[in-house]
Amino acid sequence: MSKVVTFGEIMLRLAPEGYLRFLQADRYMATYGGGEANVAIALANFGIDVAYVTKLPTHEIGQAAVNTLRAFGVNTDHIVRGGDRVGIYFLEKGASQRGSLVIYDRADSSIATASKDDFDWDSIFSGAEWFHFTGITPALGPVLVEICLEACKAAKQKGMKVSCDLNYRAKLWSKPEAKLAMSELCKYVDLVIANEEDAKDVFGIEAKGSDVSGGKLDHEGYMSVAERLAEMFGFETVAITLRSSKSASDNGWAGMLYTGGDFCFSKEYDVHIVDRVGGGDSFGAGLIYSFLTGASPGEALEFATAASCLKHTIEGDYNVVSVSEVKKLSGGDASGRVQR
Amino acid sequence: MSKVVTFGEIMLRLAPEGYLRFLQADRYMATYGGGEANVAIALANFGIDVAYVTKLPTHEIGQAAVNTLRAFGVNTDHIVRGGDRVGIYFLEKGASQRGSLVIYDRADSSIATASKDDFDWDSIFSGAEWFHFTGITPALGPVLVEICLEACKAAKQKGMKVSCDLNYRAKLWSKPEAKLAMSELCKYVDLVIANEEDAKDVFGIEAKGSDVSGGKLDHEGYMSVAERLAEMFGFETVAITLRSSKSASDNGWAGMLYTGGDFCFSKEYDVHIVDRVGGGDSFGAGLIYSFLTGASPGEALEFATAASCLKHTIEGDYNVVSVSEVKKLSGGDASGRVQR
Amino acid sequence: MSKVVTFGEIMLRLAPEGYLRFLQADRYMATYGGGEANVAIALANFGIDVAYVTKLPTHEIGQAAVNTLRAFGVNTDHIVRGGDRVGIYFLEKGASQRGSLVIYDRADSSIATASKDDFDWDSIFSGAEWFHFTGITPALGPVLVEICLEACKAAKQKGMKVSCDLNYRAKLWSKPEAKLAMSELCKYVDLVIANEEDAKDVFGIEAKGSDVSGGKLDHEGYMSVAERLAEMFGFETVAITLRSSKSASDNGWAGMLYTGGDFCFSKEYDVHIVDRVGGGDSFGAGLIYSFLTGASPGEALEFATAASCLKHTIEGDYNVVSVSEVKKLSGGDASGRVQR
Amino acid sequence: MSKVVTFGEIMLRLAPEGYLRFLQADRYMATYGGGEANVAIALANFGIDVAYVTKLPTHEIGQAAVNTLRAFGVNTDHIVRGGDRVGIYFLEKGASQRGSLVIYDRADSSIATASKDDFDWDSIFSGAEWFHFTGITPALGPVLVEICLEACKAAKQKGMKVSCDLNYRAKLWSKPEAKLAMSELCKYVDLVIANEEDAKDVFGIEAKGSDVSGGKLDHEGYMSVAERLAEMFGFETVAITLRSSKSASDNGWAGMLYTGGDFCFSKEYDVHIVDRVGGGDSFGAGLIYSFLTGASPGEALEFATAASCLKHTIEGDYNVVSVSEVKKLSGGDASGRVQR
Amino acid sequence: MSKVVTFGEIMLRLAPEGYLRFLQADRYMATYGGGEANVAIALANFGIDVAYVTKLPTHEIGQAAVNTLRAFGVNTDHIVRGGDRVGIYFLEKGASQRGSLVIYDRADSSIATASKDDFDWDSIFSGAEWFHFTGITPALGPVLVEICLEACKAAKQKGMKVSCDLNYRAKLWSKPEAKLAMSELCKYVDLVIANEEDAKDVFGIEAKGSDVSGGKLDHEGYMSVAERLAEMFGFETVAITLRSSKSASDNGWAGMLYTGGDFCFSKEYDVHIVDRVGGGDSFGAGLIYSFLTGASPGEALEFATAASCLKHTIEGDYNVVSVSEVKKLSGGDASGRVQR
Amino acid sequence: MSKVVTFGEIMLRLAPEGYLRFLQADRYMATYGGGEANVAIALANFGIDVAYVTKLPTHEIGQAAVNTLRAFGVNTDHIVRGGDRVGIYFLEKGASQRGSLVIYDRADSSIATASKDDFDWDSIFSGAEWFHFTGITPALGPVLVEICLEACKAAKQKGMKVSCDLNYRAKLWSKPEAKLAMSELCKYVDLVIANEEDAKDVFGIEAKGSDVSGGKLDHEGYMSVAERLAEMFGFETVAITLRSSKSASDNGWAGMLYTGGDFCFSKEYDVHIVDRVGGGDSFGAGLIYSFLTGASPGEALEFATAASCLKHTIEGDYNVVSVSEVKKLSGGDASGRVQR
Repeated sequence: MSKVVTFGEIMLRLAPEGYLRFLQADRYMATYGGGEANVAIALANFGIDVAYVTKLPTHEIGQAAVNTLRAFGVNTDHIVRGGDRVGIYFLEKGASQRGSLVIYDRADSSIATASKDDFDWDSIFSGAEWFHFTGITPALGPVLVEICLEACKAAKQKGMKVSCDLNYRAKLWSKPEAKLAMSELCKYVDLVIANEEDAKDVFGIEAKGSDVSGGKLDHEGYMSVAERLAEMFGFETVAITLRSSKSASDNGWAGMLYTGGDFCFSKEYDVHIVDRVGGGDSFGAGLIYSFLTGASPGEALEFATAASCLKHTIEGDYNVVSVSEVKKLSGGDASGRVQR
Repeated sequence: MSKVVTFGEIMLRLAPEGYLRFLQADRYMATYGGGEANVAIALANFGIDVAYVTKLPTHEIGQAAVNTLRAFGVNTDHIVRGGDRVGIYFLEKGASQRGSLVIYDRADSSIATASKDDFDWDSIFSGAEWFHFTGITPALGPVLVEICLEACKAAKQKGMKVSCDLNYRAKLWSKPEAKLAMSELCKYVDLVIANEEDAKDVFGIEAKGSDVSGGKLDHEGYMSVAERLAEMFGFETVAITLRSSKSASDNGWAGMLYTGGDFCFSKEYDVHIVDRVGGGDSFGAGLIYSFLTGASPGEALEFATAASCLKHTIEGDYNVVSVSEVKKLSGGDASGRVQR
Repeated sequence: MSKVVTFGEIMLRLAPEGYLRFLQADRYMATYGGGEANVAIALANFGIDVAYVTKLPTHEIGQAAVNTLRAFGVNTDHIVRGGDRVGIYFLEKGASQRGSLVIYDRADSSIATASKDDFDWDSIFSGAEWFHFTGITPALGPVLVEICLEACKAAKQKGMKVSCDLNYRAKLWSKPEAKLAMSELCKYVDLVIANEEDAKDVFGIEAKGSDVSGGKLDHEGYMSVAERLAEMFGFETVAITLRSSKSASDNGWAGMLYTGGDFCFSKEYDVHIVDRVGGGDSFGAGLIYSFLTGASPGEALEFATAASCLKHTIEGDYNVVSVSEVKKLSGGDASGRVQR
Repeated sequence: MSKVVTFGEIMLRLAPEGYLRFLQADRYMATYGGGEANVAIALANFGIDVAYVTKLPTHEIGQAAVNTLRAFGVNTDHIVRGGDRVGIYFLEKGASQRGSLVIYDRADSSIATASKDDFDWDSIFSGAEWFHFTGITPALGPVLVEICLEACKAAKQKGMKVSCDLNYRAKLWSKPEAKLAMSELCKYVDLVIANEEDAKDVFGIEAKGSDVSGGKLDHEGYMSVAERLAEMFGFETVAITLRSSKSASDNGWAGMLYTGGDFCFSKEYDVHIVDRVGGGDSFGAGLIYSFLTGASPGEALEFATAASCLKHTIEGDYNVVSVSEVKKLSGGDASGRVQR
Repeated sequence: MSKVVTFGEIMLRLAPEGYLRFLQADRYMATYGGGEANVAIALANFGIDVAYVTKLPTHEIGQAAVNTLRAFGVNTDHIVRGGDRVGIYFLEKGASQRGSLVIYDRADSSIATASKDDFDWDSIFSGAEWFHFTGITPALGPVLVEICLEACKAAKQKGMKVSCDLNYRAKLWSKPEAKLAMSELCKYVDLVIANEEDAKDVFGIEAKGSDVSGGKLDHEGYMSVAERLAEMFGFETVAITLRSSKSASDNGWAGMLYTGGDFCFSKEYDVHIVDRVGGGDSFGAGLIYSFLTGASPGEALEFATAASCLKHTIEGDYNVVSVSEVKKLSGGDASGRVQR
Repeated sequence: MSKVVTFGEIMLRLAPEGYLRFLQADRYMATYGGGEANVAIALANFGIDVAYVTKLPTHEIGQAAVNTLRAFGVNTDHIVRGGDRVGIYFLEKGASQRGSLVIYDRADSSIATASKDDFDWDSIFSGAEWFHFTGITPALGPVLVEICLEACKAAKQKGMKVSCDLNYRAKLWSKPEAKLAMSELCKYVDLVIANEEDAKDVFGIEAKGSDVSGGKLDHEGYMSVAERLAEMFGFETVAITLRSSKSASDNGWAGMLYTGGDFCFSKEYDVHIVDRVGGGDSFGAGLIYSFLTGASPGEALEFATAASCLKHTIEGDYNVVSVSEVKKLSGGDASGRVQR
């Protein structure tokens, strides 16, 4: 009976302490995360009733992933237990000119080897209003494309909103594969979220004049991307995160929203980074929270951008901030003063 | 037989590792600190003979607080043992736009439940030249106001200098309560120390035109605050710390001194923050050290500002720097080069 | 049969966790490093066949130093075992205005008490093309000066290239001692590497107009230094690292090369520092790698500067980066984006 | 709609790493636990649907306690939020002849200052079959005695089973206070659990001939204690844990059950201790699980004893073992062989 | 040109700190190990020139495994780089009645997906005298059976000794599969090593009268097992490790050797366990070292048993002891006195 | 004005975490200790006013040693500052059959290079009643023998008691050197403390029939050793610690006292060891405390034995127990029950 349902893969994340490189590490910090799980936890921390759906092995590593979700109040009743392994990703945190490094070891995870029978969307969506997934989930294999399609159809039948973060992952599928699958899935999507590269990678839509590694952002380029995305699939709303990577330690961060023919751009934050993984996921969670609670597009964008700005200051994949903390920042207090 | 005596509460500080949020922490770094204890330890590290007075339980947590003070050479002979608990505060370190978070759990600590009979100021002040306390101590309760008053009177009778950091804590008392008590206590104070908000909170004196969360500082506003403070209580010297909170990671830091009708402003430091807790305390310690060793107002201000700038680069509540390290910085070398 | 041979002292480095001061530390991170060992490990990480020569005690602390070198693929066959102790240095990491602090405890280490008989350079250099040492090694004592001289002569007899990083250490010898020894040794050196102070400390050659603690660099001053160094000793190539210490947390970093009468200056990097120890060593390793693999002076300089820029983002004394990581940065991508 | 409901105080437990004494610790492992919470978590790990009821502050330390319970699947819907603090206990782990040391700092916790209005037992017990509490909860104050009484009455009205672990805590109340309150509460109790000292401390019933610090256990003495307890309050079942403290590192551990006029004694385990806190709670959870799932008295006792034997090998207050792990041990395999 | 060559899989081992269960862990100690790699490292620590052969991915996790081997001086020149992943195993350390728990995540590792072309045994064995593998390697798949067969044949052609530890792993293959493959491979084996269960699992040979979980060992039963093994395959030598698992914290440990028609039994050690993983591998390494250095069967057995006794006191998979440390113990000094 | 003065070397102790071997460690726990410093800290924890005398460098590592002593309340006013280094010892903790391993790196420490002028014993001993040193201090070099002699003479002139722990260290001096120096020093000693090997190593007095590595203790042998020691030097009291090393994890521990012609033997403790370093020092501290507070020989011995039994359960070199904790154990409660 959760309001929001998200579906995808949650992985064991293994990261060396501090700024140690993989070749220097003899212990790893172990947390759990993944695009849609990150959205679920962020929403739970905003007080939203949210369920996360995936498949995890019955052993203790699978259980530990479940326990992480439960700790934050995410409903895990629809998680299917079975399969052999929890997907793993190794994360080495970058600094200054040295970028963070990710090594994926996720092949043949329980969710990647799931079957359509594992998920009864009618029951899962009972009482739900919103379904969220990302482009990573269909990238896990053809069966997952079908499962996502079933979920999308079931969601639309129930009159739910559907959101999707394009999240292209070159290591999981080719651009043509992504385009084919995502074009089908996007038909059911109301709110699409993309970063500066996704639209290009998945649909070949390029933001002209933008040079992301140079740290400059071209508003007009992004506006045309959003318009073209909306045209192609009839999205109600297109949201784009705007990251200017000055270095691994300092990023500019902002967002753009295109809805009902109008554009809005958030204020831009200069973020001194603690952990930038999951920045986009926390942005998506901010939008979903805002739309569920009746915010205007402008308010939703500022909330989502402030929420994801804060995510960059938090270790791990998922956001751990309250609504009031986000509103304090979106309301203008970026001073980082001590809260006594 | 210590030259300086400070009096107040020392708490157990529990802080998650690194930038973890409270909800992510499964271990806490345990140190001890508190306004006046921080001044005592900083002074001891400057080579000053200093005693710290408080009340602490007889159990091992109380003893651990004593041992921390002793480790740095603070005289603990006048610490009264008894009562039930060591006050605790939980500290979550902020970064960038996310401010640090403090949760106090200090009610009914041994010092907050102390009685006047616990402290024989005549004996405590034997041979002392300076007494320091902050506005936190009388805020612990009416009995503490009385004890502070006794201490102030005893100090003045012995011809000692008295310094006080206003340090308003809204969680401990109301503004009218603070005004009433501090107005009485300030009659005995020679050197008053305040930050940008204390004068307003305690005495309703506002620095016009200053917007502290915006990071701008208005010299003239602070000058008028200092003048009004001096007028109200006849302080020999008024010292104000000037913090511009750009973010939780980067602050501007400077100080101002008003004495004998003259103002001086220190140079301003751009600090990349390791731990900003206790910044004001280390500033106060710098002033006390300077005045005890015959520095001019300008020298005292630069020393105190440099000392407290360095505090921001040091973990924990209290400053751990030597006089020569401070003088190197106040003398102009802010390059942070390796000292081999 | 290694291509490159480096010779010097490898020390046990003991550093408190994070930004803790020595007086706050109850545990130390233990790694091993030293000027020439750092060059060897960096070269091994570039895929170069390199041997490191030193003397280390037979006990487990000596063995741990050997194992560190072996882990990275450095040939340790010519390390002599004997003597009593591994030199130690304590490192306290600085931040912002507080500089890092080094306490040496290296007297009477095995290598400092080695004799000429310990090293058979003819055999060590069998098949080698390049010999590298630094000014630290002869500073360990008169016998070490002789050993270095023997090594240099043997290297030149075999037609090897010789490189030397001047690396003046005031705690090991006086400037006149250094000048006397280094003047003799430099006769055999093809590539000399220096930072902004070495040329002045060792040979009294000053970069006019440069104010290193103020963060400004004067290109013309450095050009004259390089010219004078080349004139004095006939160096084929003079390389100078240009560090502007804005603070202990942020440095500017660049390099200069003077060879064949031509100067080239690298691009300058603004580095947010993780660990700046060994920055010069990683620069030297970058040059040696480049020259061994046929790079042009300009390419070599950009590679070496980028490599050493990355070193500043890596914990420990030595560089742990691959050739492709360096080339990505020297090729222009300093965005620090996540590598998935 | 949980099958079991437990009610009491959950505290923040702060324990130095390993075997460090309080005076040596500069960091604490932070977990959460308390008599009834430990039972709840252990039951959840056995797959039982269980709710935990308490009162916790709204701040993050309170939330962290909630998250711990949720992580293990305990229902927290009936936890009241409010009050000022989470009770704390400091735990120093003993070894060999040095006993573990506990310092309580639990006065004025949110639950200790709760009111009767905070808990609507009719709603809390909806669908429940079993209510469990311990003697610690009424010891928190007269209001808590009343709340427990209300809970017991409500439980009996609904036909639920009620279990109580006597758990006398001398620091919370006097023996006469305990006797008065517990005598009233025990009227509603079906299953009472006690260790070798509780019956004596609370009701003055002594196990003749037993010398607990000498490590010897006298079966007949315990039998008479159980009989007298059953006589006094009409308990359906009396369970007693039998600990022989050979040292802080090694204990003997067994249990006894008296029900329907019959006694049974479990096998005794020689436990090499990892963490003995919560041993009794895990025994109680084992009994509740067994009785809920239809075990015979003998089976229940062996299951509970094996479960609590395993608890002694697990860090923290609560048991983290599965039913199959317990059954493997109670079935006779105590070899501790690797499970691959 | 190494004297000994071992071949198999090296895995990333992830173990929670201390005695934490998987469900309590938020960090993992990361080391590398595997049956044959453990033998290689143990031999290298005995001063033997040893090469380890496997296949590992080119990424940093693969490289970290290589670096571990190199650190201890194992020759890694014949390690093939390629494939996708390093096999992983999760290890939860048991205590007292709670056994250690292993979760394997090793499917599709680089070595499990290797092909026969990856290994040129003629070149690998150049100059070698001894080849060692275990039953785990052929269990990785049919191709690995073939590769092992090729290696065995090549070894015998070169007149090398071949040793094999049966090491049956039920999760990797069935007993009939194991019997089929191992029967073929054992034809080439000179020294076979087994524990109390392997002979039964692989070849159906049972040690009558032995009750391993009860902690009793039956010498005559083991003698008959050894005789039957020798009969079946003509092994020159059969070695059996005799473990009596009193608990996860305390084991009895001894060994038996059958060679030339004679039996010898080692003394038995009562071991208080630090880490029992790899106990058998260290026993095998002790035998190989002994036979290579000309020890008698009795000496070899005592050396191997003492070496593997010490392994139980060392963290990680592989033994880190010197020959002199082993000889001190096998010579009779088991007092564990401080070595100053 | 301290009652007890102890004199010797305090070293930085660097120990890998847990049971890691030196070759596995990448971090070290850093504490400070040494025979006489351990006695001083133990006495301070018993509430005795005690001063520790040594020489330490002015740098931060030297200061950290001072701060450790001050933390426990030891008077450090007479510690001379100067010289170059703090002596270091590396400690690898053993387990079961693997003994602990110590690597000394203490040559040329500040105290070892001190001169007679550094210490003004007349002033140091002002108001003192007891002087304690060990055989390690004169072993640091001929000058230290002279300094010890001066101290002993000064102590006797003031009517102080002098105690000495023979503590032979073969790595510091030869047996003849030790005999020569200690024979002279022992003339001034009232209470001599020795373990099972010291009397033999220093004075050639052997405990017949004792086989220390076999774990058996021969009372009569030790009685004759004590008698002969008393005869040779006229000691008032001879105390001997009796350790039976069953393994590195489990020791038997007891003590013997010979005074006024009478022998007494303490009860023997079976200790499960946390850290056995400093066991003898804590025994000495227990005797000094007892004699200073008027205990009978029997009481003194039981107190000292219980105190040092507890030391074996405490990490680090020095004892951290209170008088009441010791008396609880010597009074018979060795159950290690939780102290709530």
